Amino acid sequence: MTERVTGREFFTARTVSQTLAGFRPVRRTEVETVPLAEALHRVPAAEVPAPGPLPGFVRSTVDGFAVRAADTYGASDGLPSYLDLVGAVRMGAEPSVAVPPGGCVAMPTGGVLPAGADAVVMVEYTAETMPGTIEVTRPVAPGGGLVRADEDVAAGAALVPAGRPLRAPDLGLLAAAGVTAVPVHARPRVVIISTGDEVVPPCTAELAAGQVRDATASALAGLVTDAGGEPVLAGIVPDDPGALETTLRGVLPDADMVIVSAGSSVGARDETAGAVAALGRIWCHGLAIKPGKPTLLAECPGGSGADVPVVGLPGNPLSALVVFRLIGVPLVWRLAGCEVPPPEPGTRARLSRDLASAAGRLDVVQVTIRDGVAEPLFGPSALLSVLTRADGYLVVPEPATGLDAGSEVEVTRYR
Amino acid sequence: MTERVTGREFFTARTVSQTLAGFRPVRRTEVETVPLAEALHRVPAAEVPAPGPLPGFVRSTVDGFAVRAADTYGASDGLPSYLDLVGAVRMGAEPSVAVPPGGCVAMPTGGVLPAGADAVVMVEYTAETMPGTIEVTRPVAPGGGLVRADEDVAAGAALVPAGRPLRAPDLGLLAAAGVTAVPVHARPRVVIISTGDEVVPPCTAELAAGQVRDATASALAGLVTDAGGEPVLAGIVPDDPGALETTLRGVLPDADMVIVSAGSSVGARDETAGAVAALGRIWCHGLAIKPGKPTLLAECPGGSGADVPVVGLPGNPLSALVVFRLIGVPLVWRLAGCEVPPPEPGTRARLSRDLASAAGRLDVVQVTIRDGVAEPLFGPSALLSVLTRADGYLVVPEPATGLDAGSEVEVTRYR
Repeated sequence: MTERVTGREFFTARTVSQTLAGFRPVRRTEVETVPLAEALHRVPAAEVPAPGPLPGFVRSTVDGFAVRAADTYGASDGLPSYLDLVGAVRMGAEPSVAVPPGGCVAMPTGGVLPAGADAVVMVEYTAETMPGTIEVTRPVAPGGGLVRADEDVAAGAALVPAGRPLRAPDLGLLAAAGVTAVPVHARPRVVIISTGDEVVPPCTAELAAGQVRDATASALAGLVTDAGGEPVLAGIVPDDPGALETTLRGVLPDADMVIVSAGSSVGARDETAGAVAALGRIWCHGLAIKPGKPTLLAECPGGSGADVPVVGLPGNPLSALVVFRLIGVPLVWRLAGCEVPPPEPGTRARLSRDLASAAGRLDVVQVTIRDGVAEPLFGPSALLSVLTRADGYLVVPEPATGLDAGSEVEVTRYR
Repeated sequence: MTERVTGREFFTARTVSQTLAGFRPVRRTEVETVPLAEALHRVPAAEVPAPGPLPGFVRSTVDGFAVRAADTYGASDGLPSYLDLVGAVRMGAEPSVAVPPGGCVAMPTGGVLPAGADAVVMVEYTAETMPGTIEVTRPVAPGGGLVRADEDVAAGAALVPAGRPLRAPDLGLLAAAGVTAVPVHARPRVVIISTGDEVVPPCTAELAAGQVRDATASALAGLVTDAGGEPVLAGIVPDDPGALETTLRGVLPDADMVIVSAGSSVGARDETAGAVAALGRIWCHGLAIKPGKPTLLAECPGGSGADVPVVGLPGNPLSALVVFRLIGVPLVWRLAGCEVPPPEPGTRARLSRDLASAAGRLDVVQVTIRDGVAEPLFGPSALLSVLTRADGYLVVPEPATGLDAGSEVEVTRYR
């Protein structure tokens, strides 16, 4: 940690890696039970054990004939085994016959193995040469053509682990086990506060001179939703000493996280720090990242449970979104009990031109990708349209002083 | 296309690449207008033009002083320019003063450039040495420290393109432009029909011998949701000639797509093809993919608009999900007007062991990834738990006859 004065502000500055490793709020959301149809991407609070084994019975995996494996040993095209067909297994029903020595029973894929049998020979290696007699032209080993009653999942084993967002196949396995409701962490309630005298709601039809519509709140809401959170837009607070503190006091009791999207003036930035400092502990004010330096991280007491993380973002919408993606999104997942956020799409590309950076600072560069070439998108300033035109971003790591044209870079792609 | 007889079934078999290139239903969902808060990942039906320029006024990008650039030419630490401070711009308000020759006006970041000025000099390169006099120690060029009124987006230019699912920053740009409702394609209604005498609903507490709970429908619903669709579970149809056809007739009028999750027996598979053939055109029955060979693709007349794509999936849940991810998910996106689905996470890894395949067939192999090594997950049969334990999958391409241990492979990661 370094204390330094930059421009007019006091910064307790951190690097991005210090922040990702060190700012780890202990708050977690409550556990709630949701039906399977609403459980996609939700995070189980604990491992969900299988109530019983799956598939639950010895099940054929092929169409064919249930046999005693020993009856097929040595069978070949030249010297088939001949077995008496004594019956057939119906799908979804208890077999009505057993397989005697020298006998067989017709089996559909997915059928229950009859008593007496220990294997299923595939129909491809059989022929019904005479009515009631099955010719087998290949041997099958015991256990062949079937799965054990607990081969998919053993009773009591984990159907799904804790802490990993549920994927589509997880819902299938839970359904197979008859688990139709899952205890998961509640979606983190992420309150988004916009500030700035110049900021007006998006629905404002005509702008007065100098007014801008609130772009950041809608975009942050999208990032929060993508991270499994529930965004709550708390509206726009004017640059008025005390107004932000009052708003923070009002939202903290019902929030799992608070984002303050700062006004872009120096005064507005100072107000965020002042209001947050009055309510909790500031962990860092200033991040060694470009764009996004004037970022603030803090924890403030909430309504119940552990302290609520508070993220103060730069006033520039592009900077705010870049920082929130890197620092805020993992925090939202963590609040829901997920320590490792799901992987993001990426691709390797060649850099089209030199990029300068400063050692110790993480640079996030928006790029387009064409034919394997990453082309940085720059403008005279950080405009939101740069972010909407980009296919993804690359990172110039903290130790590097830049990247050379032609070097291979890893681009995180937007989806 | 090849006509061949495999086992007991007639197959009009296709390769996966033929299918992805050739089976391209023209059906698209209706267009509906949704509020910005519900527009994330929805697909705009047409480019959304900017009603006006953004930011809409000449805007300062730094804290400093609005100047006439020519007044700063040649300024240095040794020989500063001295400018008269004639006023200050307030955030979100029309400037009340103009900048005269030899004068300057205090500017917050985001403020409106006053008349007379053509640049903003950063506060870092200034000092107020005497009250009312600003010392400037670096020259600024015309246009420095500001953005033009249409520099983010010009009036009439596209805020967001058609056909690409909306991302969080898109919502921000739309909000900035005052576009609070967006015309997007309706979520495709994807009806999921389960079949099989052995299949019972997931809520079934006690299973009779041979019964299995419907795992595939819940998992397919998850994949459909991930692809921006609206899954509609139509329940379980018994293996009864005519029952599936009746169900299909019932659901087609309100469906954008129909998935038949087949029973696993030969009879159940044949029934899907028969029922679909009675109602529409079968495009392929049999896919050169492992797992997933008994896949059927067809188009059947629906309620209105172009024909409804129908996907018949293998009875094995793992096979069904593998095929649907590869073939079905792009179809769901396409129904909503998105031709190129969003990128998926991937990673390169070294293969832990040899993999055999057949030329002309695409093999999909589930893997775990540890320390850069992709370890294939095999079982005696295709069990659903293989899919839930996997970190992702790799593909052995159609021309290849296998992959060697140690070779570098691209793994698509689950998220």
